[in-house]
Amino acid sequence: MSIRLPRGTQDILPGEIEKWHLIEEKARELCAKFQYREIRTPIFEHTELFLRSVGDTTDIVQKEMYTFEDRGERSLTLRPEGTAAVVRSFVEHKMFGDANQPVKLYYMGPMFRYERPQAGRYRQFVQFGVEAIGSADPAIDAEVIAVAMSLYQSLGLKKLKLVINSLGDKESRAAHRDALINHFKPRIGEFCNDCQNRLEKNPMRILDCKQDRDHKLMATAPSIIDYLNEDSKHYFEKVQQYLRDLNIAFEVDSNLVRGLDYYNHTAFEIMSDAEGFGAITTLCGGGRYNGLTEEIGGPEAPGIGFAMSIERFIAALEAEKVELPIDKAIDCYLVSLGEEAKDYTVGLLHKLRLAGFSAERDYLDRKIKAQFKAADRAKAKYVAVLGEDELKANKINLKSMDTGEQTEFDLETFVEKFAELL
Amino acid sequence: MSIRLPRGTQDILPGEIEKWHLIEEKARELCAKFQYREIRTPIFEHTELFLRSVGDTTDIVQKEMYTFEDRGERSLTLRPEGTAAVVRSFVEHKMFGDANQPVKLYYMGPMFRYERPQAGRYRQFVQFGVEAIGSADPAIDAEVIAVAMSLYQSLGLKKLKLVINSLGDKESRAAHRDALINHFKPRIGEFCNDCQNRLEKNPMRILDCKQDRDHKLMATAPSIIDYLNEDSKHYFEKVQQYLRDLNIAFEVDSNLVRGLDYYNHTAFEIMSDAEGFGAITTLCGGGRYNGLTEEIGGPEAPGIGFAMSIERFIAALEAEKVELPIDKAIDCYLVSLGEEAKDYTVGLLHKLRLAGFSAERDYLDRKIKAQFKAADRAKAKYVAVLGEDELKANKINLKSMDTGEQTEFDLETFVEKFAELL
Repeated sequence: MSIRLPRGTQDILPGEIEKWHLIEEKARELCAKFQYREIRTPIFEHTELFLRSVGDTTDIVQKEMYTFEDRGERSLTLRPEGTAAVVRSFVEHKMFGDANQPVKLYYMGPMFRYERPQAGRYRQFVQFGVEAIGSADPAIDAEVIAVAMSLYQSLGLKKLKLVINSLGDKESRAAHRDALINHFKPRIGEFCNDCQNRLEKNPMRILDCKQDRDHKLMATAPSIIDYLNEDSKHYFEKVQQYLRDLNIAFEVDSNLVRGLDYYNHTAFEIMSDAEGFGAITTLCGGGRYNGLTEEIGGPEAPGIGFAMSIERFIAALEAEKVELPIDKAIDCYLVSLGEEAKDYTVGLLHKLRLAGFSAERDYLDRKIKAQFKAADRAKAKYVAVLGEDELKANKINLKSMDTGEQTEFDLETFVEKFAELL
Repeated sequence: MSIRLPRGTQDILPGEIEKWHLIEEKARELCAKFQYREIRTPIFEHTELFLRSVGDTTDIVQKEMYTFEDRGERSLTLRPEGTAAVVRSFVEHKMFGDANQPVKLYYMGPMFRYERPQAGRYRQFVQFGVEAIGSADPAIDAEVIAVAMSLYQSLGLKKLKLVINSLGDKESRAAHRDALINHFKPRIGEFCNDCQNRLEKNPMRILDCKQDRDHKLMATAPSIIDYLNEDSKHYFEKVQQYLRDLNIAFEVDSNLVRGLDYYNHTAFEIMSDAEGFGAITTLCGGGRYNGLTEEIGGPEAPGIGFAMSIERFIAALEAEKVELPIDKAIDCYLVSLGEEAKDYTVGLLHKLRLAGFSAERDYLDRKIKAQFKAADRAKAKYVAVLGEDELKANKINLKSMDTGEQTEFDLETFVEKFAELL
């Protein structure tokens, strides 16, 4: 019996991987320009980290984590998101002491959530994200949003919608929290069990409940916007001003709350407006998380970041039918005839590759016709043919697959001549 | 209390990550030339996969796997190595039916083994590996070895030692196995428990026992080389001939057996000869694994591959004191004076970046002197200064940090002029 992929995971295969490479290269390039540098944290962390940061009333922590004990009886969890570990690393390596502040980091890698698999949703999925920790300048909020928008746009996405909101500072959130409790309490019995539990612990979570989203009280719930104090209002206005300075269009949506506990002030999502993109339209989400470093045991260091799913990025590119610049053609395919000539191509192939060319030969002892077919499939720009006669005469025949033109070269100097040709 | 990294893992931080990028880029480039294409399999697999492929008498399976049950009670294991999953994917996606054979794949990513952490050994470590599945041509064995050697050499490693061996085909291995049992059986009581268990199950494993490596019988154990049948001998000779064709120096070591069960015919290791490299000198190991596809439930498809640790690659580069071409300088740092000028740089910075330059500004409301210091630390090639007077006059002042030369530009056309300059 054969063994299959674990449920909810996928293999990314040649043919598909080229899209990933393109996105990753663009992301790295962009991060260099915007001065974000990569950090790689482990695939698993102490479970405690996510309880403290993501929050123990969230769906992620309550239902979706891959938690296990290692052979030393430590409780470990495959990371369900990237921010907690980056902040953990920021604290552990005392990056708050670096001369360059804010510390601007990015990450790219697999995350794990035990959810019901469905179209576009995997249990292992890949996120690219950035975090800027150590500054409470609203200009950095705009910059973080600009990284995400610029990446999408640089690969040709056009149908994007940026939605922003402010969750305010502590004071504003507390006032809003009281208002929410007063609003929902009288009829909380009509809500799901989860929401009933959330009422006292974290009433804002009720607003993004999937089950109760159509309840009448949802539409009339007090909006955080009305509870922002002066500082929070001013901060939010500055963020909007800077977004306009960057020519980034946005909408304010006072219902945007995000599914993690650690956000305050700026929260944002980027959605795809493309037709037929499907039910899950969110491509990217992020926000500000002042206070999270303290939660994890470090000193105060205000931060902001986002995370985007690469799987959904690719789905959006497909929905908008963007043609990606992917070149699969190889420079040269070596066709040979006869045992000696075949053996000779082993060394010749290697020389071509070391000289910088993509090159291939046959490894199945195929007839010359089948070798030419393989060259076709590899979209070879040139085919070099080495038969027994050529080998004896120290010659090799090169055919351009583009023009059909054939040229004979001295075998000894072939690689140099080929380099001149290309 | 602060939360720390799980034991045996590491964060890869800016300053160190640039080495990883360099190696990864080289590996990708080289794979394109050698026509290996990337595959990404999940971080975890069904535990059964590793029992069947890596082998249940190996240390990896017996002692080192991260195995856990998911919420659906499936036994999953964080992958301890890369080959099993690639072969699983080859079978599952029926790549044996592809027109292009052999299927040439590479992978790059974290692996997990619960070992005692020590210098250069982590519980999460990163491997780059290639697999060529679907050909039993000895030329592909040489090619696979050439990929590894070329990668090391392309980054400047010189003190490399390639050791090869043949483990023979099934028939040869069976004859050798009998000889090993006869050799060790009379004195097996002097060996460790593990070796006693291995005697009947898998006596070749005794040869790479770390505990009994100094036992007298080790040095006199029958060598596989003496038990190779004609086919196996011929195959091994061809591999050696091709390595010579590629100008790759090697030694034959008949004691080389590799720590995984699935190998036959060619086995190889690349070691660092650099002084002070430490106890673990193996950089890369690999070999042929005809029969593994059948083990996993697929049709016959002979394969060969290698895996190398990136951590050890970096350690070898450090041991040989190789200077890597890492450029951390940024193109332009924007220094501003006054609230209005500071706000203006938000948009200007973005334009510079979108025009292709790495650029930065201050996000901490720092005085002008501190901003210049930050520009220094960022190794800025140019510093652009925008004060209140300049802003009013629609000008900006650019200073080359290399020559000290200063030039005034119109603010409107600054980005275009800067592009011309660079």
